[in-house]
Amino acid sequence: MLTQDLFIHHVYFWLANPESKEDHAALLAGLEALAKVPSIQQFHIGVPASTNRDVIETTYQFSWLAVFPSREAQDEYQDDPLHLHFVATCKHLWKKVTVYDSIAAY
Amino acid sequence: MLTQDLFIHHVYFWLANPESKEDHAALLAGLEALAKVPSIQQFHIGVPASTNRDVIETTYQFSWLAVFPSREAQDEYQDDPLHLHFVATCKHLWKKVTVYDSIAAY
Repeated sequence: MLTQDLFIHHVYFWLANPESKEDHAALLAGLEALAKVPSIQQFHIGVPASTNRDVIETTYQFSWLAVFPSREAQDEYQDDPLHLHFVATCKHLWKKVTVYDSIAAY
Repeated sequence: MLTQDLFIHHVYFWLANPESKEDHAALLAGLEALAKVPSIQQFHIGVPASTNRDVIETTYQFSWLAVFPSREAQDEYQDDPLHLHFVATCKHLWKKVTVYDSIAAY
Protein backbone atom coordinates (compact mmCIF):
# COMPACT_ATOMS: atom_id res chain seq x y z
CA MET A 1 0.00 0.00 0.00
CA LEU A 2 1.19 3.49 -0.75
CA THR A 3 1.49 5.71 2.30
CA GLN A 4 2.36 9.37 2.42
CA ASP A 5 5.77 8.88 4.02
CA LEU A 6 7.15 6.99 1.01
CA PHE A 7 9.68 8.25 -1.52
CA ILE A 8 8.22 7.97 -5.04
CA HIS A 9 10.77 7.63 -7.85
CA HIS A 10 9.12 7.62 -11.28
CA VAL A 11 11.24 7.36 -14.42
CA TYR A 12 10.04 7.59 -18.02
CA PHE A 13 12.17 6.23 -20.85
CA TRP A 14 12.17 7.18 -24.52
CA LEU A 15 14.00 4.53 -26.55
CA ALA A 16 16.58 5.48 -29.13
CA ASN A 17 14.97 2.93 -31.46
CA PRO A 18 11.32 2.78 -30.41
CA GLU A 19 10.45 0.51 -33.34
CA SER A 20 12.92 -2.17 -32.24
CA LYS A 21 11.25 -5.11 -30.51
CA GLU A 22 14.69 -6.28 -29.42
CA ASP A 23 15.35 -2.99 -27.67
CA HIS A 24 11.95 -3.10 -25.95
CA ALA A 25 12.72 -6.62 -24.73
CA ALA A 26 16.20 -5.61 -23.60
CA LEU A 27 14.99 -2.64 -21.55
CA LEU A 28 12.17 -4.69 -20.06
CA ALA A 29 14.64 -7.40 -19.05
CA GLY A 30 16.89 -4.73 -17.59
CA LEU A 31 14.05 -3.27 -15.52
CA GLU A 32 13.01 -6.70 -14.27
CA ALA A 33 16.56 -7.28 -13.05
CA LEU A 34 16.66 -3.76 -11.59
CA ALA A 35 13.54 -4.51 -9.56
CA LYS A 36 15.60 -6.88 -7.42
CA VAL A 37 17.49 -4.03 -5.75
CA PRO A 38 16.82 -4.78 -2.07
CA SER A 39 16.06 -1.22 -0.99
CA ILE A 40 13.03 -1.06 -3.34
CA GLN A 41 9.82 -1.54 -1.36
CA GLN A 42 7.38 -1.68 -4.29
CA PHE A 43 7.66 -1.20 -8.05
CA HIS A 44 5.69 -1.14 -11.30
CA ILE A 45 7.06 -1.55 -14.81
CA GLY A 46 4.70 0.12 -17.25
CA VAL A 47 4.04 1.09 -20.81
CA PRO A 48 1.70 3.89 -21.90
CA ALA A 49 -2.00 3.16 -21.43
CA SER A 50 -4.42 3.73 -24.29
CA THR A 51 -5.79 6.91 -22.71
CA ASN A 52 -5.20 9.95 -24.88
CA ARG A 53 -6.07 13.52 -23.97
CA ASP A 54 -4.20 16.76 -24.57
CA VAL A 55 -2.52 16.70 -21.17
CA ILE A 56 -1.41 13.06 -21.38
CA GLU A 57 2.19 12.30 -22.30
CA THR A 58 2.04 9.18 -24.45
CA THR A 59 5.34 9.32 -26.35
CA TYR A 60 7.53 7.45 -23.88
CA GLN A 61 8.05 3.69 -24.15
CA PHE A 62 8.58 2.58 -20.52
CA SER A 63 7.55 3.77 -17.08
CA TRP A 64 9.61 2.64 -14.10
CA LEU A 65 7.98 3.38 -10.76
CA ALA A 66 10.07 2.50 -7.72
CA VAL A 67 8.85 3.20 -4.21
CA PHE A 68 11.23 3.50 -1.28
CA PRO A 69 10.63 3.74 2.46
CA SER A 70 12.90 6.78 2.66
CA ARG A 71 15.26 9.12 0.84
CA GLU A 72 18.12 7.09 2.27
CA ALA A 73 16.78 3.89 0.71
CA GLN A 74 16.56 5.68 -2.64
CA ASP A 75 20.16 6.81 -2.26
CA GLU A 76 21.20 3.21 -1.56
CA TYR A 77 19.38 2.16 -4.74
CA GLN A 78 21.32 4.70 -6.80
CA ASP A 79 24.58 3.15 -5.62
CA ASP A 80 23.42 -0.48 -5.67
CA PRO A 81 25.48 -2.75 -7.98
CA LEU A 82 22.26 -3.88 -9.70
CA HIS A 83 21.41 -0.26 -10.52
CA LEU A 84 24.90 0.50 -11.73
CA HIS A 85 24.77 -2.64 -13.89
CA PHE A 86 21.40 -1.60 -15.31
CA VAL A 87 22.71 1.83 -16.32
CA ALA A 88 25.92 0.39 -17.76
CA THR A 89 24.18 -2.25 -19.84
CA CYS A 90 20.97 -0.44 -20.84
CA LYS A 91 21.93 3.23 -21.19
CA HIS A 92 22.54 2.82 -24.93
CA LEU A 93 18.89 1.81 -25.36
CA TRP A 94 17.36 5.19 -24.51
CA LYS A 95 17.67 8.63 -26.00
CA LYS A 96 15.90 10.43 -23.16
CA VAL A 97 14.97 9.75 -19.58
CA THR A 98 12.94 11.96 -17.27
CA VAL A 99 12.77 11.40 -13.52
CA TYR A 100 10.27 12.72 -11.00
CA ASP A 101 11.16 12.17 -7.34
CA SER A 102 8.36 13.00 -4.91
CA ILE A 103 7.97 12.97 -1.16
CA ALA A 104 4.97 13.58 1.07
CA ALA A 105 3.18 16.88 0.50
CA TYR A 106 1.93 16.86 4.11
CA MET B 1 1.18 -3.14 -2.64
CA LEU B 2 1.77 -2.30 -6.26
CA THR B 3 1.19 -5.19 -8.62
CA GLN B 4 1.79 -5.28 -12.35
CA ASP B 5 -1.90 -5.44 -13.28
CA LEU B 6 -2.64 -1.99 -11.86
CA PHE B 7 -3.36 1.20 -13.81
CA ILE B 8 -0.91 3.93 -12.76
CA HIS B 9 -2.13 7.51 -13.21
CA HIS B 10 0.56 10.06 -12.33
CA VAL B 11 -0.15 13.77 -12.68
CA TYR B 12 2.31 16.62 -12.19
CA PHE B 13 1.07 20.16 -11.54
CA TRP B 14 2.80 23.47 -12.16
CA LEU B 15 1.04 26.24 -10.25
CA ALA B 16 0.17 29.51 -11.93
CA ASN B 17 1.47 31.26 -8.81
CA PRO B 18 4.10 28.94 -7.37
CA GLU B 19 5.11 31.53 -4.74
CA SER B 20 1.60 31.65 -3.27
CA LYS B 21 1.26 29.68 -0.05
CA GLU B 22 -2.50 30.05 -0.34
CA ASP B 23 -2.49 28.40 -3.75
CA HIS B 24 -0.30 25.56 -2.47
CA ALA B 25 -2.74 25.02 0.38
CA ALA B 26 -5.74 25.19 -1.93
CA LEU B 27 -4.38 22.60 -4.35
CA LEU B 28 -3.31 20.33 -1.50
CA ALA B 29 -6.80 20.54 0.01
CA GLY B 30 -8.26 19.82 -3.41
CA LEU B 31 -6.10 16.72 -3.84
CA GLU B 32 -6.96 15.48 -0.36
CA ALA B 33 -10.65 15.71 -1.24
CA LEU B 34 -9.98 14.11 -4.65
CA ALA B 35 -8.36 11.13 -2.92
CA LYS B 36 -11.81 10.12 -1.65
CA VAL B 37 -12.97 9.05 -5.12
CA PRO B 38 -14.06 5.47 -4.42
CA SER B 39 -12.51 3.89 -7.51
CA ILE B 40 -8.99 4.90 -6.34
CA GLN B 41 -7.20 1.91 -4.83
CA GLN B 42 -4.07 3.72 -3.59
CA PHE B 43 -2.71 7.26 -3.85
CA HIS B 44 0.20 9.52 -2.95
CA ILE B 45 0.21 13.31 -2.85
CA GLY B 46 3.75 14.52 -3.34
CA VAL B 47 6.03 17.49 -3.72
CA PRO B 48 9.46 17.40 -5.34
CA ALA B 49 12.13 15.65 -3.31
CA SER B 50 15.48 17.33 -2.72
CA THR B 51 17.24 15.09 -5.26
CA ASN B 52 18.69 17.05 -8.14
CA ARG B 53 20.43 15.59 -11.17
CA ASP B 54 20.28 16.58 -14.82
CA VAL B 55 17.54 14.08 -15.64
CA ILE B 56 15.32 14.99 -12.68
CA GLU B 57 12.34 17.25 -13.29
CA THR B 58 12.11 19.45 -10.20
CA THR B 59 10.09 22.43 -11.44
CA TYR B 60 6.59 21.11 -10.69
CA GLN B 61 4.85 21.87 -7.40
CA PHE B 62 2.62 18.80 -6.84
CA SER B 63 2.65 15.14 -7.79
CA TRP B 64 -0.65 13.25 -7.72
CA LEU B 65 -0.25 9.50 -8.02
CA ALA B 66 -3.50 7.56 -8.22
CA VAL B 67 -3.53 3.79 -8.65
CA PHE B 68 -6.54 1.95 -10.03
CA PRO B 69 -7.35 -1.75 -10.28
CA SER B 70 -8.22 -1.35 -13.97
CA ARG B 71 -8.64 1.02 -16.89
CA GLU B 72 -12.38 0.95 -16.18
CA ALA B 73 -11.84 2.15 -12.61
CA GLN B 74 -9.73 5.01 -13.96
CA ASP B 75 -12.50 5.91 -16.38
CA GLU B 76 -14.99 5.97 -13.49
CA TYR B 77 -12.65 8.31 -11.62
CA GLN B 78 -12.56 10.72 -14.56
CA ASP B 79 -16.36 10.99 -14.42
CA ASP B 80 -16.72 10.91 -10.64
CA PRO B 81 -18.42 13.99 -9.16
CA LEU B 82 -15.48 14.48 -6.78
CA HIS B 83 -13.10 14.61 -9.74
CA LEU B 84 -15.31 16.99 -11.70
CA HIS B 85 -15.56 19.18 -8.59
CA PHE B 86 -11.78 19.14 -8.19
CA VAL B 87 -11.22 20.28 -11.77
CA ALA B 88 -13.93 22.94 -11.55
CA THR B 89 -12.65 24.42 -8.30
CA CYS B 90 -8.89 23.99 -8.70
CA LYS B 91 -8.19 24.36 -12.43
CA HIS B 92 -7.44 28.08 -12.03
CA LEU B 93 -4.58 27.21 -9.68
CA TRP B 94 -2.35 25.55 -12.27
CA LYS B 95 -0.74 26.76 -15.47
CA LYS B 96 0.35 23.34 -16.65
CA VAL B 97 -0.46 19.73 -15.92
CA THR B 98 1.20 16.65 -17.37
CA VAL B 99 -0.28 13.18 -17.04
CA TYR B 100 1.39 9.80 -17.49
CA ASP B 101 -0.96 6.79 -17.58
CA SER B 102 0.81 3.45 -17.47
CA ILE B 103 -0.27 -0.17 -17.55
CA ALA B 104 1.66 -3.40 -17.13
CA ALA B 105 4.62 -3.82 -19.47
CA TYR B 106 4.32 -7.62 -19.23
